[in-house]
Amino acid sequence: MKIVFIGSGNVATHMAMALKNAGSDIIQIYSRTDTNAQLLAHKVSAEPISDLNNLNREADLYIFSLNDDILPSFVKMMPDTSGIWAHTAGSVPMNLFGGRLNRGGYGVIYPLQTFSKEREMDFTKISIFIEGDIIETKNSLLSLARTISDDVKFLDSESRKYLHLAAVFANNFSNHMFTLANEILRERGIEFDALRPLIVETAAKVLEMEPKKAQTGPAIRLDVKVINKHLELIKDDKIKEIYTILSESINRHSS
Amino acid sequence: MKIVFIGSGNVATHMAMALKNAGSDIIQIYSRTDTNAQLLAHKVSAEPISDLNNLNREADLYIFSLNDDILPSFVKMMPDTSGIWAHTAGSVPMNLFGGRLNRGGYGVIYPLQTFSKEREMDFTKISIFIEGDIIETKNSLLSLARTISDDVKFLDSESRKYLHLAAVFANNFSNHMFTLANEILRERGIEFDALRPLIVETAAKVLEMEPKKAQTGPAIRLDVKVINKHLELIKDDKIKEIYTILSESINRHSS
Repeated sequence: MKIVFIGSGNVATHMAMALKNAGSDIIQIYSRTDTNAQLLAHKVSAEPISDLNNLNREADLYIFSLNDDILPSFVKMMPDTSGIWAHTAGSVPMNLFGGRLNRGGYGVIYPLQTFSKEREMDFTKISIFIEGDIIETKNSLLSLARTISDDVKFLDSESRKYLHLAAVFANNFSNHMFTLANEILRERGIEFDALRPLIVETAAKVLEMEPKKAQTGPAIRLDVKVINKHLELIKDDKIKEIYTILSESINRHSS
Repeated sequence: MKIVFIGSGNVATHMAMALKNAGSDIIQIYSRTDTNAQLLAHKVSAEPISDLNNLNREADLYIFSLNDDILPSFVKMMPDTSGIWAHTAGSVPMNLFGGRLNRGGYGVIYPLQTFSKEREMDFTKISIFIEGDIIETKNSLLSLARTISDDVKFLDSESRKYLHLAAVFANNFSNHMFTLANEILRERGIEFDALRPLIVETAAKVLEMEPKKAQTGPAIRLDVKVINKHLELIKDDKIKEIYTILSESINRHSS
């Protein structure tokens, strides 16, 4: 399959490399900034472009992996092409492409994962959620996604929005809790390493039980003495507010 | 070593079982409620007691594993005994025992982990933080802790308070994020399973990078469009508030 990537961020980077390794032919990487396009293009032996006039219009698939803010206006600027258009965004409905008359179908190929460029990923373990305008598009995206992942499912735009929202809590916000924990320790000169076994267990627990059942700590057992001690230790008012709101929320969800 | 446990909660249960398996002799389990004492006592072949008059006063070690709210007043009620007194609480200073004249030393044996009764734990992987009034107490607690854990360290009361606070963020609050994610999915009929690979990766990432570097998502890339869409999807005002405050906090810590 001949694939063009529109975008060269974390998702594009990991997906392009996985597809390349699985035998797909990544022919072009478009990025507004020259250097980003070149960086990823080099990794997957593609041609870097930063001008849409140079776009190859005969690819089988165009994967749009752009910031949600830019995606809609960018699609309007796209020249007509052959092939399927698909984006990788959790919160953008498939019908973003509905008004466009490219000469293929359109759809979504959404990998549910947190990607950082510095970290290698085993794409086979990543869940990919697919959507397509017609059965042929669905099947094309399904076959392609299966070359890189062992877990490919269909999911409509409406449900995908909620999955993305849930993922923000499960990953973005929980990771931020690790950041705040790290800050608290750093001020006392304690290494973040001290928390790593706890963090591993935090994730391991919810692999086998409901997160609500896995909840422990002062908030769930209403240990007001500890809660007040902790609030005294926190100097930053914003972090104090987070401690209070989350403790209340744990309590509210305890029954 | 002959050990009496005061308390029969999650921490007492896991620690008593680990000590028993490592060859210690758990002679009594005290709990205010008969049935709790019996349950744990049965597991570690100890005598259950719910009346302090029946306390064996000749043990080598008394481990207090009680709610922080109860601990101070309970210690005042304790009859004189031989042996060391140690508690397992993160936020209670060692000198809680300072005014008491038991016939041994006193100290702390704090396992940094999240314990649920339903889940078996490999105690050897749990970090234990030790404190003792005199060198002999420290050495006794160190030797004992090393029979159940590969990772035993000394930590003073002041630093332990901050470690406990950081652990509340790293475990309690991140687990609550999983609970909220689960609720969002449940309303749409999506299985929590969909998020499990993401949660595993969330923890795996911070084993090898700083949590701040691992941060991804709409808040860190200031994707206002996604943030506003998410806020529209959330019906519950309290959860909306959490989304807003945490997104702001991620942003504030991004530089």
